[in-house]
Amino acid sequence: MKACGLIVEYNPFHNGHVYHIQEAKKTAEADCMIAVMSGDFLQRGEPAIIDKFHRVRAALASGIDLVLELPYPYAVQSSDLFAKGSVQTLYQAGVDSICFGSESGDISHFITSYEIFKENEAGFKEMLQSGLQNGLSFPEASRHAYEKIGLSGGEMDLTKPNNILGFSYVKEILEQQLPIKPLTITRTSSGYHQQTISGSIASATSIRKELLTHESITKTANDTMPAATIKQLKDYISHASSWHTWENYFQLVYYRVMTMSEQELAAIHGVDEGLEFRIKKTAKQAESFHDWIEKIKTKRYTWTRLQRIFVHILTNTKKSDIKDIESGSTVPYIRLLGMTKTGQNYLNKIKQNMEIPIISSFSRNKHPVQQLEEKAVKAYYSILCPKNRQELFKQELLAPIITE
Amino acid sequence: MKACGLIVEYNPFHNGHVYHIQEAKKTAEADCMIAVMSGDFLQRGEPAIIDKFHRVRAALASGIDLVLELPYPYAVQSSDLFAKGSVQTLYQAGVDSICFGSESGDISHFITSYEIFKENEAGFKEMLQSGLQNGLSFPEASRHAYEKIGLSGGEMDLTKPNNILGFSYVKEILEQQLPIKPLTITRTSSGYHQQTISGSIASATSIRKELLTHESITKTANDTMPAATIKQLKDYISHASSWHTWENYFQLVYYRVMTMSEQELAAIHGVDEGLEFRIKKTAKQAESFHDWIEKIKTKRYTWTRLQRIFVHILTNTKKSDIKDIESGSTVPYIRLLGMTKTGQNYLNKIKQNMEIPIISSFSRNKHPVQQLEEKAVKAYYSILCPKNRQELFKQELLAPIITE
Repeated sequence: MKACGLIVEYNPFHNGHVYHIQEAKKTAEADCMIAVMSGDFLQRGEPAIIDKFHRVRAALASGIDLVLELPYPYAVQSSDLFAKGSVQTLYQAGVDSICFGSESGDISHFITSYEIFKENEAGFKEMLQSGLQNGLSFPEASRHAYEKIGLSGGEMDLTKPNNILGFSYVKEILEQQLPIKPLTITRTSSGYHQQTISGSIASATSIRKELLTHESITKTANDTMPAATIKQLKDYISHASSWHTWENYFQLVYYRVMTMSEQELAAIHGVDEGLEFRIKKTAKQAESFHDWIEKIKTKRYTWTRLQRIFVHILTNTKKSDIKDIESGSTVPYIRLLGMTKTGQNYLNKIKQNMEIPIISSFSRNKHPVQQLEEKAVKAYYSILCPKNRQELFKQELLAPIITE
Repeated sequence: MKACGLIVEYNPFHNGHVYHIQEAKKTAEADCMIAVMSGDFLQRGEPAIIDKFHRVRAALASGIDLVLELPYPYAVQSSDLFAKGSVQTLYQAGVDSICFGSESGDISHFITSYEIFKENEAGFKEMLQSGLQNGLSFPEASRHAYEKIGLSGGEMDLTKPNNILGFSYVKEILEQQLPIKPLTITRTSSGYHQQTISGSIASATSIRKELLTHESITKTANDTMPAATIKQLKDYISHASSWHTWENYFQLVYYRVMTMSEQELAAIHGVDEGLEFRIKKTAKQAESFHDWIEKIKTKRYTWTRLQRIFVHILTNTKKSDIKDIESGSTVPYIRLLGMTKTGQNYLNKIKQNMEIPIISSFSRNKHPVQQLEEKAVKAYYSILCPKNRQELFKQELLAPIITE
């Protein structure tokens, strides 16, 4: 059985994702489609609008055979650590290929870019450091560094965020010499961050915007997602009464910051260079979460970076919690969230030879990484009423979802 | 000018308090009535139903001349530390006497009790320790120990909670040989913890119950409080939209516990003997704050003690924060909340000779005790919307309230 891996967030799962699964399956000639998916908090530092289990069910209904969880300490990170966690999870799950979407749709561009990068790595790092020292944000400094080594514009523009993620996957595969074939397919016309919907294929950003603005599933939103997603969105709302947004967490994270000392805040992952003082100072005037980030934002601290930091404050994730993740060469376990019969057959074949344990539910003796995951889940559900959060949390204790 | 000190919480300020002020003033032949008042969290481990400033205004309108704040790390404590903070604050403010309410109304009973206690202190402590070792709660073990040394029943029953506080004040005065005359006056007929209201004098407990049950100031409640209190209650509600109860803080404290490790929880003041595991375990099933405490409660951990612990969790107050308080012989400063002209005259006379600083608003360089106070205030207002909490917090930065 040939397996193809996808790196996903499915926030929410939409028609563009269905298209990507189908195209990837053809390109990879795969029998089993494996997705590694972020949990309740996402790479750009946001809560997912619905929880992971409801997103898993939508994916299993539309072509994914196996859903593995990207553990929290890899999921809410910049591209390098995010790519390491995702690619290593798929590697441990024995995929033959990893297929991601890109604008060029040509994998040779990514491979050539990696070769150019490796040849000029010293120069790149030097340029990056000097940019950071001059007060640039990480993305800005990277952009300058990529420009310097000739990786901007043209066929492979590493100054575009979506190319950066794809490039990071390819880099992790080639750097670690993993026996995985990197593949890419052309993205559908809708841009990654497109804000408005036109037709049945739309960006997740525009779909979320539509859902949250209208606080319901409008006809426009409905047309962009498979029936299984609509069912899961409705089911989630029936438990949780609203979708999750940062504003719902504003009171909790404000409260936490207000009852932490500066030293405690500085121990949180990502809070560096005196940012603790700026976070505390701006809290007093913040009218909303959005307003708070606006007040903190600097050239150096981008919106996305600050959102990620706030997720770590919300979940009380410390620098010391992430240290082992950063230095480790692979992931400590595979957490299985759901599977089809095909996925189950695949898993039965590969599991004897696996190097790391497969975990399904939260166990009594949790790995430190799973302890971080548990705190994130608890924080995610904290905004719900006791009955609902108890009911939804139970999903973490059950066996993985199995569908036909 | 002769000053008499009162130790108060005024939650809320009611007719019984007016009566106590008048009687105390007569008994003490005082020109200036000074109250040391707990801030936003109270001795029994509860949020005050309205903030300190609104309670200060009500008191200044009804016979109190000077209101000093009992700092948070003394206020939310068992009787010994509470008494130390209150009596020492009044001592530093130069009071000639301290007058408290009691059932007997005879100060000689308290003085005699103290003498008996001192003579039998070794036996008392031994009995107390043995009770605690046998799993009794602190109040239960104390009761047995007081019984053993003959301080139960009769004229001076130290097994009654209200007598314990009075006894602790007298003990602090005599033990430290402070130049303060202890005085007591008979309580009005309404018992300290009486649950229902009859007439114009009622317990604070019964008044809070009436206010919170009806979510408004009923005629019954109205009749038990001076007009100034009614005005302040209404004014507070116009800012805060609801009175403060533990249930309003349930989500915050649940969220905090769920994102703390057991080790972090064990560092909180009052969390001892593995209580951290019990708090975490019961959180999952708790339907409300009340339900949570019910699930944690044991013979040893009484309701009041647990509520106090939960205030410390809410405010993130650690064992290490309280260490200096426990070993210190007096309070580090006097925080002035409000005064009448009489109070102001008194203050002008005594302030040259004061040993410790007088602080009015939150300053930039806060004493560690004031840092704890600030965290408590921030936690207290956290449940309000941003606009309201900002507006109410501003009161902490203003000069003290001055009334005619």
